[in-house]
Amino acid sequence: MIKTIEWTDAGVVMLDQLLLPTEEVYRTYTDYEGVAEAIRSMVIRGAPAIGVAAAMGVALGMKDLPELPPEERDRRFGAVCAAISATRPTAVNLFWAVDRMKRVYARVRHEGSGEIRRALVEEARRMHAEDIESNRALGRMGQELIPDGARVLTHCNAGALATAGYGTALGVIRAAVEAGKRVEVFADETRPFLQGARLTAWELMKDGIPVTVITDNMAGHFMKQKAIDCVVVGADRIAANGDVANKIGTYAVAVLARENNIPFYVAAPVSTVDLEMPDGDGIRIEERDGDEVRTIRGVRITPENVPVAHPAFDVTPSRYVGAIMTDRGVARAPYADSLRGLCAPPPTAA
Amino acid sequence: MIKTIEWTDAGVVMLDQLLLPTEEVYRTYTDYEGVAEAIRSMVIRGAPAIGVAAAMGVALGMKDLPELPPEERDRRFGAVCAAISATRPTAVNLFWAVDRMKRVYARVRHEGSGEIRRALVEEARRMHAEDIESNRALGRMGQELIPDGARVLTHCNAGALATAGYGTALGVIRAAVEAGKRVEVFADETRPFLQGARLTAWELMKDGIPVTVITDNMAGHFMKQKAIDCVVVGADRIAANGDVANKIGTYAVAVLARENNIPFYVAAPVSTVDLEMPDGDGIRIEERDGDEVRTIRGVRITPENVPVAHPAFDVTPSRYVGAIMTDRGVARAPYADSLRGLCAPPPTAA
Repeated sequence: MIKTIEWTDAGVVMLDQLLLPTEEVYRTYTDYEGVAEAIRSMVIRGAPAIGVAAAMGVALGMKDLPELPPEERDRRFGAVCAAISATRPTAVNLFWAVDRMKRVYARVRHEGSGEIRRALVEEARRMHAEDIESNRALGRMGQELIPDGARVLTHCNAGALATAGYGTALGVIRAAVEAGKRVEVFADETRPFLQGARLTAWELMKDGIPVTVITDNMAGHFMKQKAIDCVVVGADRIAANGDVANKIGTYAVAVLARENNIPFYVAAPVSTVDLEMPDGDGIRIEERDGDEVRTIRGVRITPENVPVAHPAFDVTPSRYVGAIMTDRGVARAPYADSLRGLCAPPPTAA
Repeated sequence: MIKTIEWTDAGVVMLDQLLLPTEEVYRTYTDYEGVAEAIRSMVIRGAPAIGVAAAMGVALGMKDLPELPPEERDRRFGAVCAAISATRPTAVNLFWAVDRMKRVYARVRHEGSGEIRRALVEEARRMHAEDIESNRALGRMGQELIPDGARVLTHCNAGALATAGYGTALGVIRAAVEAGKRVEVFADETRPFLQGARLTAWELMKDGIPVTVITDNMAGHFMKQKAIDCVVVGADRIAANGDVANKIGTYAVAVLARENNIPFYVAAPVSTVDLEMPDGDGIRIEERDGDEVRTIRGVRITPENVPVAHPAFDVTPSRYVGAIMTDRGVARAPYADSLRGLCAPPPTAA
């Protein structure tokens, strides 16, 4: 199993996703500033993985503190949470994870610093374990929509590397394979960051699942050629009405899928659903540095200083989405109802 | 004016498009094998430019021959034409240009080798001059469809570098600018070969026409954001019914444009129309080497030996095409009629 991120006594260990697939390097972060920078620079990326990293970053920020007066400790905790929250704006899992850590802190803030540290670390590790469990549940239920023999297109990397392990979209594919189905994956390379060419290809090859890398602009051609049976992608934020913010290019894939009568599925845990966001128009789309477009792995591909645009995400309106596979079941349109139902807290026993 | 290709006493000179935009290197080819390799390896590319290069390659192949018996000369001419024709299968201009050279040869083959050489060189140079003229005519008529202030998306490079000079799609943009319109271009980077990021950006910057480079998967997003007013692309072959073979990714752009009610235009000289091809299904799509996908400018971006696909072109069904701008006027649907009309030889004077 790929270890995307792990809490260890030495610090938070992450597989450096900037170097894959050519180098497999694990980095150990010993302070929250390092974790924040790792999220910002995309050493770790993918909405669920960012959530876990954020939680671990918060825990790390409160780990080796001297005994402080409560007000000073609160200030410190607030500063840590703010720094982690400021790293990337689109994936809601980041804010969801920080909120969970805030609730734990509120519960234990009157205890000694040892107990606070213990509770925060425990919560962060619990979120890590829960993420893998939720990916597996999502995969089990989602794979029922994947036919035997399916050729599945995916965009970006919604795999083990985008989560604590197993994956969302790739979790569905792994679960289909575990259920005995033959599945073949087409991976969009996903410029500019090449998550498909670098990460999805790497982890599927590791698992022995057949994968073919294509450039983003080939997806429509292969759909028209009837070489794709369905599309499964992850999500960075899902609005209450089912609009989906995901890696730039997802919208184009969804439109091309509908044009060619190919089902387009989104796989994400309910922690990716933002019920407070009525629709996709309000989701803040991160604009990243232009040099990530002008260069590829350090090699310049454009004239110097040519203007570029770099929205890192786009929004796919819910009318293109055939189903949203979650860890609590598969939602279908109308999503305003189905998502609210899945997100409701489970009824407490009488 | 950019000199893409030129016949000189020293040989055929080409601007090496593999090195742009970081280096501006002109290469001189002194034999037809070199020209064939330049076409195959994409030192020169773009349907009209390939046509001119093919004609010059044929002329070069018959240039420095000793006096030969006619049958041997015919054999040599046949071998030269076959080698040039075998370089790239999709752009019809290549075959159209070789056919023109064959007609000239048939006319002069009983003359001395000096006269044959002179006639072939003259024809190749005429095709060079005609291509620029036809681009200008195309631009003049095509630009009437471009509104003042338009933000025009283009895919690949259908510019001066894809022709003897001026360009087809970019010729339309140049003509709009010459007509006093303000035009802003969005250039798809066009993986895997990056013709947009490298070549379109370079030549528009040289001309001072505003250009923004985007990755291919951003085009749909910007269309949905209402940041694009129309699309203009070139073509490698247009079937009799108006189906358009062009650089991989063109089909996706066309679908996204229609989904967003944005006009999608094709700009190409009538030499790109293949009336013998009833529709796009019969057009042979070149499959290029997988390493062009696995690497970018020499840097590997995928796991080693990952399977990739590399169709270099796709076919856009004519129902997505709002107009085909040619050097003889603008064709509208139904294209079977309008294209046949434009391609008909001009009536001879009574």
